[in-house]
Amino acid sequence: MGRNSDARPKILAAGRDLLARRGYSALGVAEICAAAGVPKGSFYYFFDSKQALAEAVIEDHWVEQRAQWAALLGSDKAPLERLRDLYDATTEVQRRAQKDTGAVTGCLFGNLALELSARDDEIQRRLQEIFDEQITLVAEVVDQAQRDGTIDVPDAREAARSLVAQLEGSVLFAKLRNDPGELDQLWPHTAALLGAKA
Amino acid sequence: MGRNSDARPKILAAGRDLLARRGYSALGVAEICAAAGVPKGSFYYFFDSKQALAEAVIEDHWVEQRAQWAALLGSDKAPLERLRDLYDATTEVQRRAQKDTGAVTGCLFGNLALELSARDDEIQRRLQEIFDEQITLVAEVVDQAQRDGTIDVPDAREAARSLVAQLEGSVLFAKLRNDPGELDQLWPHTAALLGAKA
Repeated sequence: MGRNSDARPKILAAGRDLLARRGYSALGVAEICAAAGVPKGSFYYFFDSKQALAEAVIEDHWVEQRAQWAALLGSDKAPLERLRDLYDATTEVQRRAQKDTGAVTGCLFGNLALELSARDDEIQRRLQEIFDEQITLVAEVVDQAQRDGTIDVPDAREAARSLVAQLEGSVLFAKLRNDPGELDQLWPHTAALLGAKA
Repeated sequence: MGRNSDARPKILAAGRDLLARRGYSALGVAEICAAAGVPKGSFYYFFDSKQALAEAVIEDHWVEQRAQWAALLGSDKAPLERLRDLYDATTEVQRRAQKDTGAVTGCLFGNLALELSARDDEIQRRLQEIFDEQITLVAEVVDQAQRDGTIDVPDAREAARSLVAQLEGSVLFAKLRNDPGELDQLWPHTAALLGAKA
C-alpha cells in the first residue's frame, strides 16, 4: 500500500476502535495493522510508535467531539436544554456503539486517563487540557442558566467540573454494565440537583 | 519460601500496589513476584493466574473499603455529616497514596472497570456488585437526610448513583492531574447540589 494512499486514516480508525475496546497496554502495533489492513511499514511511515498513534487518535477524537459539544452547547436553545442535548448525545453515542460493536465503549479520554495517567506524561497533559476544555464549554452554559435564574449553584465552574465528573463516572458505569440505559436517569436527576426550576 | 509462609499476603500486597499504579494488562506475574520477593512457584501455588490474583485483590480491597464506608456512613452523626466524612476519607486516601508513592492511584475498582470491562466477565460482574453495594450504602444515608428534611432529591437511590458516579469521576480527575486537591471542592459543591440547607 503506497504512502500517499488511505493508509493513515485506516490506521487511525483501527487504532481508535481497538483503543476504545481493548485499552492501550493490551494492544500491539501488529494487531492494529492487521485490523487496518496495512503492512507494518506503512504504520511506521506515519507514526513513530503506538504512543504516537494514541496521541493522534486522541486529537482526532477531540476535534470531532469538541465540534459536537460546541454545536450543542452553543445552540440558540435555552441553556438547560442545551445541556440536556449534550446528555442525550452522550447517551446516543454509547447506545450506537453497543448496537454496532456489541459493547458500550465508554469515554476514550476517561479510559486512557485511568490506564495511562501514571505512566505517560505527554498523554496525561493532553487529557488534562481536553477535560479542562470540556469543563469550560459546560461552565459557559451553567453560567448562562445561572444568570437567567433557571438554576442556583454557588460557582459555575465548580458546578461544571462536578457535572463533567458525574457524566464521566456515569459513562464508566454504563461501560461496566454494558448498558447505555445507565445514562437514562442522569439528566432528570442532574437537572434536579442543579436546582433547576421545573 | 515455604508455602505456609507469608508469601500469600506478600503477593496480594504487591499485586494491589502494582495494579493500582500500572493497571492490569501492563503487568506480568514475574514483575509481581519480583516486587513481592517470592519465587514463581509460590505465586502459582496460591493463584491460578494473574486474573485469579486480580480477583483476590479486588475482594481484599472491598472487604477493607466496605468496612470503612459502613463505619463512616453508619455512625451516629447527622446523615450529611456522615456523607461528608466519606468524601473526606476518600480525599485522604488519595492524599496518602500521593505522599507514600508519589502518585494519586485513583480507585482500584474504577481503574479495573475501564480497563477490563469489555474483556473479563468474571471481574466485570464482581465490580458491578461492588458499585451496587457502594450505591446502596450511600442511598441509605441520602434517604435518611431526605426524611430529616435536610436535603431535597427526587429519588434517594438515583441521587446515590449520581453521587457515587460523581465521586468516581472526580477521583479520575485527581488521578489524571496527580492532585488530590481536585477533591477538595467536591463536598461543598455536592452538598449545595443536594439542596442541603446550610
